Amino acid sequence: MRFTSEQRFDDDVLERRFILGEVPGILWTPGSASPSAPVPLILAGHPGGLDMMYARLAARARHAAAEGYAVATIELPGAGDRPRSAAADQARADLRQALAAGEQPSGDVVDRLVLPLVDQAVPEWRAALDALLLLPEIGGPVGFSGGVISVGVRLAVVEPRISAAVLFAGSFVPRSVVEEARQVTIPLLVLLQWDDEGNDRQMALDLFDAFGAKEKTLHANMGGHTGVPHFEGDDANRFFARHLK
Amino acid sequence: MRFTSEQRFDDDVLERRFILGEVPGILWTPGSASPSAPVPLILAGHPGGLDMMYARLAARARHAAAEGYAVATIELPGAGDRPRSAAADQARADLRQALAAGEQPSGDVVDRLVLPLVDQAVPEWRAALDALLLLPEIGGPVGFSGGVISVGVRLAVVEPRISAAVLFAGSFVPRSVVEEARQVTIPLLVLLQWDDEGNDRQMALDLFDAFGAKEKTLHANMGGHTGVPHFEGDDANRFFARHLK
Repeated sequence: MRFTSEQRFDDDVLERRFILGEVPGILWTPGSASPSAPVPLILAGHPGGLDMMYARLAARARHAAAEGYAVATIELPGAGDRPRSAAADQARADLRQALAAGEQPSGDVVDRLVLPLVDQAVPEWRAALDALLLLPEIGGPVGFSGGVISVGVRLAVVEPRISAAVLFAGSFVPRSVVEEARQVTIPLLVLLQWDDEGNDRQMALDLFDAFGAKEKTLHANMGGHTGVPHFEGDDANRFFARHLK
Repeated sequence: MRFTSEQRFDDDVLERRFILGEVPGILWTPGSASPSAPVPLILAGHPGGLDMMYARLAARARHAAAEGYAVATIELPGAGDRPRSAAADQARADLRQALAAGEQPSGDVVDRLVLPLVDQAVPEWRAALDALLLLPEIGGPVGFSGGVISVGVRLAVVEPRISAAVLFAGSFVPRSVVEEARQVTIPLLVLLQWDDEGNDRQMALDLFDAFGAKEKTLHANMGGHTGVPHFEGDDANRFFARHLK
């Protein structure tokens, strides 16, 4: 992991860009954290495209950093400046075509779009976790927050260092991921935008139902994909305070 | 409204029992509230049976009173020591029979059980509100919190003094109430126990979907009817802090 730039904000949060192998990422840490007190870490998921997502990610990260968390994110495969996949581009085109025709996309289209992404992204997130936990200012425990929700589900199943997750039900979910969700036992807060135009509400409810966690909470709010109310950021911080501190 | 007993708790909350016409009730007020600063009021709904519900109601009320709210509740028609209705008893027996047979109760049974209760209870809650708002220590605004959810829905439609509501989706809901919900425009927080054995989850989701409010949030948690996690009490207080203060 190599840091490529750094910037300190008014709120004393330190933002550092990094590169890990070929994967770019961003790390936010509380500026006032003393080196003798390593902080918990939140991995911040997103739908891909760090530059496009930067404003929302940075706002969420600085909100959490202000409460004593380190927050890190990496670019998804095929997004931003990373090499594109012809198969994923084809699946995305098929998905858009179905939505434009007012149809629910077929399971096959969703599988072709999401499953290869999960298979490639999850080892990258785990490698990032390896590198981040070597930094003296980061201790643990570790949470995951955001989307792609199928990436969060797989991470929660395979990565024992993740203790709690806030998952954003804002993308299509393969049937096999709903099955995989039965193996998730860490505490979960699932956010659902009730009228999200780019989301299958029933699939999100099925996914919530499937999770094997004893403590799981669903928060559904009005508005579309990007309309998550500001107070949900406070709720996510309180959820992590219960489970990571 | 006539006060019949009073008790002051360690946390300085004052609990007073009262009777209004033939309807008994309980009022909790923050002990330290100065008479020059009237506090907002939360009407605390419940499924009927004040004595049976007392422990849970008092815990919620004192939690809210500690944050500066007055909380009041009244007995439901046909519950506790109030005169029973033969028709309601028959409907309740029919409901139990359907549930015991593993069936969803018919719409007719739910209508016979819930609609007369709503018709009788709502004017009583409004009369209690009239009396409570005459007390110098209570100002407003007014919120409603709890169940029976159909009572909360009707109150939110007909009573303009109610500014926000936390509704517990813990009872069967007549189809006509789902229609009525479209007229509810105040901010809502709806609590749903995902595995509530005495509740129709799909009806609760349909009801949430129907509400006409621009700000509505659903919180679903695991566990049965009485298993609402403690942190939802904090969430409800924060919801009311956003809308009643």
